[in-house]
Amino acid sequence: MKHNIKYILPVVVLLFMACNSNQKIEDAKQQNALVFSQGEKVTNDNFTGTVYVHSLIEGDSINQNSVGNVTFEPGARSKWHSHPAGQILLATDGVGYYQEKGQPKIILRKGDAIKCPPNIPHWHGASPDTAFVQVAVTGREKGPTVWLEAVSDSLYFSKE
Amino acid sequence: MKHNIKYILPVVVLLFMACNSNQKIEDAKQQNALVFSQGEKVTNDNFTGTVYVHSLIEGDSINQNSVGNVTFEPGARSKWHSHPAGQILLATDGVGYYQEKGQPKIILRKGDAIKCPPNIPHWHGASPDTAFVQVAVTGREKGPTVWLEAVSDSLYFSKE
Repeated sequence: MKHNIKYILPVVVLLFMACNSNQKIEDAKQQNALVFSQGEKVTNDNFTGTVYVHSLIEGDSINQNSVGNVTFEPGARSKWHSHPAGQILLATDGVGYYQEKGQPKIILRKGDAIKCPPNIPHWHGASPDTAFVQVAVTGREKGPTVWLEAVSDSLYFSKE
Repeated sequence: MKHNIKYILPVVVLLFMACNSNQKIEDAKQQNALVFSQGEKVTNDNFTGTVYVHSLIEGDSINQNSVGNVTFEPGARSKWHSHPAGQILLATDGVGYYQEKGQPKIILRKGDAIKCPPNIPHWHGASPDTAFVQVAVTGREKGPTVWLEAVSDSLYFSKE
């Protein structure tokens, strides 16, 4: 019995350490995902699936760029749309898609940056299995975003 | 002796798990710091201390915003300067300072966003003890950045 006590205590301590470490890994991963807070769930019909937007900078008469943090849950995506002054997308977490009309889908991963030309119809969103977080920098000086049709499941899930 | 072997094995396994978990925590923290890669060390004299810049988007004739990821080591900062079309700063990691001429210093932390008005002299950089990482969105349509004098140590370390 003496033997048991001598060895059980370190086992218990180490088990506690292992569990605590797992919590710390989860905390570090969580911090990682949240450079900017997620913001509010989008309720308009410009998106398919669940999307959150957090406005970071509003355009004004002096600097007409607006900046927003957009979080797409797996499978979520925008409708086709275009921006009269173009847009810059900065991928900050997860795996996403970007596609311009007539072009193949581009996969976006954390650290990628892409420039959407003015007036070119395109869409962006998460991949089917992984959420995607992007910062979007959108010039407002030439008018608002032009929204077009939804991205069909067959296009979204196609290999091209 | 039989007792010893019975208890030593789980202790060794748990010790290994604990060490491995610590590595995973460090990996997760490291990933966290690096949304965008650090890029090249700045060699011009527009900065004090060690600064890295990674250009994410170059301005062009259609979209004249440029986007860069800037990493300031502790104590590093820009000289005073101004932008003819203004700038947007997005804090992605660490703790930094931002100050406009005649105003108190503002502390920037991960997740903060700030708009620098056009032609207002300002500087930004890391805090003395913690590095700072920012994404800068700079309009180039009205000309290049105007560089001014260095930020003195007495101003940098002052409480205001």
